[in-house]
Amino acid sequence: MNLNNTTILFLTGILAISCTQQIKPQKTEQDRTHDPIFSKGERITNDNFTGTVWLNNLVTADRINQNAVGSVTFEPGARTKWHSHPAGQIILALDGVGFYQEEGKEKRIVRKGEVVKCPIDVPHWHGASADSAFVQIAITGREKGETVWLKPVTDQEYNN
Amino acid sequence: MNLNNTTILFLTGILAISCTQQIKPQKTEQDRTHDPIFSKGERITNDNFTGTVWLNNLVTADRINQNAVGSVTFEPGARTKWHSHPAGQIILALDGVGFYQEEGKEKRIVRKGEVVKCPIDVPHWHGASADSAFVQIAITGREKGETVWLKPVTDQEYNN
Repeated sequence: MNLNNTTILFLTGILAISCTQQIKPQKTEQDRTHDPIFSKGERITNDNFTGTVWLNNLVTADRINQNAVGSVTFEPGARTKWHSHPAGQIILALDGVGFYQEEGKEKRIVRKGEVVKCPIDVPHWHGASADSAFVQIAITGREKGETVWLKPVTDQEYNN
Repeated sequence: MNLNNTTILFLTGILAISCTQQIKPQKTEQDRTHDPIFSKGERITNDNFTGTVWLNNLVTADRINQNAVGSVTFEPGARTKWHSHPAGQIILALDGVGFYQEEGKEKRIVRKGEVVKCPIDVPHWHGASADSAFVQIAITGREKGETVWLKPVTDQEYNN
């Protein structure tokens, strides 16, 4: 061995530093914030929602196609008021973990890739879970009129 | 220094091995195959499509909600025949790069996050680009009848 201790310790140090740089924690798939497919749009400022909610209006209903289509992003804990739709609604869960509840039924968890069909005129609410945002596409028929907004979802209802 | 050369070289070796394990190439965002939000469903076997196309029927039209909603995955080069919809159609591009063309207009590129509104009764086709798959949500009103299928999209039309 011709290397002296000092040289070897120096090389060990260099190696240790480069290792430290490599082992920065990588985000796991679960941790990763997914790039949104549709930009989250504008923050909703009306009082039909609790918490922070964003809306990107993708399609406006018109004479030819009476469906409105929007991408809605609920930040953790955010939710709609109780409400109903005179022509029902279809919800496509795009990302995160959310809740959906119809009047008289138990709250259910809705995950990325799941689909919910809200019946006509049945009061319900939806939103994000407490720990995760929730991104949904809402397809809402406008041919029978607008959404009917009801009372806020209380913390007790939300946490049940 | 009480450490002997052998001990230090052994420790250096261990460190070098653990470094090697850390620097396995990580896939970049661009390389990553996106996990599909909706499973791709069943391969379409009817002759209304060219190439390999998959359909996941998310919502079937019914008396209450007359929209059918499906997630369609076109493999590279795959496309629909020319066709038209008596109540129009909305296409939401979820992933990849696709094409959309209406009769008498130029073919356009459709990317993740874009929305296309197909007018009523206007012949058109859509599908994947040659190099990339294309995943779309199709929202199709069934209240005025079924899709009208026309002639196949030729390679010349596809490549134009």
